[in-house]
Amino acid sequence: MTEPGATPVHVRAARRDDVPAIVRLLADDTLGASREQPADPLPQSYWDAFDAISAQRGNELLVAEANGDVVGCLQLTVIPGLSRMGAKRAQIEGVRVSSKHRGRRIGEALVEAATDRARTLGCVLVQLTTDRRRVDAHRFYERLGFESTHIGMKRAIEP
Amino acid sequence: MTEPGATPVHVRAARRDDVPAIVRLLADDTLGASREQPADPLPQSYWDAFDAISAQRGNELLVAEANGDVVGCLQLTVIPGLSRMGAKRAQIEGVRVSSKHRGRRIGEALVEAATDRARTLGCVLVQLTTDRRRVDAHRFYERLGFESTHIGMKRAIEP
Repeated sequence: MTEPGATPVHVRAARRDDVPAIVRLLADDTLGASREQPADPLPQSYWDAFDAISAQRGNELLVAEANGDVVGCLQLTVIPGLSRMGAKRAQIEGVRVSSKHRGRRIGEALVEAATDRARTLGCVLVQLTTDRRRVDAHRFYERLGFESTHIGMKRAIEP
Repeated sequence: MTEPGATPVHVRAARRDDVPAIVRLLADDTLGASREQPADPLPQSYWDAFDAISAQRGNELLVAEANGDVVGCLQLTVIPGLSRMGAKRAQIEGVRVSSKHRGRRIGEALVEAATDRARTLGCVLVQLTTDRRRVDAHRFYERLGFESTHIGMKRAIEP
């Protein structure tokens, strides 16, 4: 057992060769398990998605690395808008920490790195939604200063 | 009084000369009133924001027009991502309908046009958050098939 916080965690921009590790993180999750296919070889749709993220300005994937392993990830999207005097906001999606590495403040390091990046890019707020069932996540974000002011709604689009 | 639905509503992409009308819509709102400055001349930050939206692929502003007037607006953002097998999602922000034109399904026309556009762009879901205080809005989106599955959290970023 490693003491909490004993292994330094480094947050950096994701590279294309991190995609398999990120997909494993997305699948290593109660809700994500049924949605993802972390097969080898990885389905082409994941590689295409990485390229789409890289090609669309305002989108960045961050990963947390510990002992050379990718142990956490998130996606940051900068959204320019007219409201609030033409403010930019940052949105965080897909925050995941390896189930083997919980309780080591890796999620906190990721969210704080994303917030620093959003500040650098001129954003005035950072927002995210979390599934109602992720009660632990709500407490985690509230501890970081997020306020549960909104209801997050989704609708599937029929092809 | 016009009968509900009597005036045809046309949803189209916003042009730069729509910006003052859109800002008036953003200010014509209980929550937006204190956040916006629909002055003449309009603060430069709004023009800069319109240019930033136009320059960042994946972002589109839509307006609803009735009798030549802009009576509603929203912003659509396409977010490519790795989760859900590398799916694209569409996010809707800043939905507003003129207080003088409520009850004429203008909001519905806007959201459906945005969803059609998202489908064309390859998105598998459309998502939005609404302030907990906007109880009428929750019913409106639920009627359109949105499900309140998430909690929306925000944190202000100190400069």
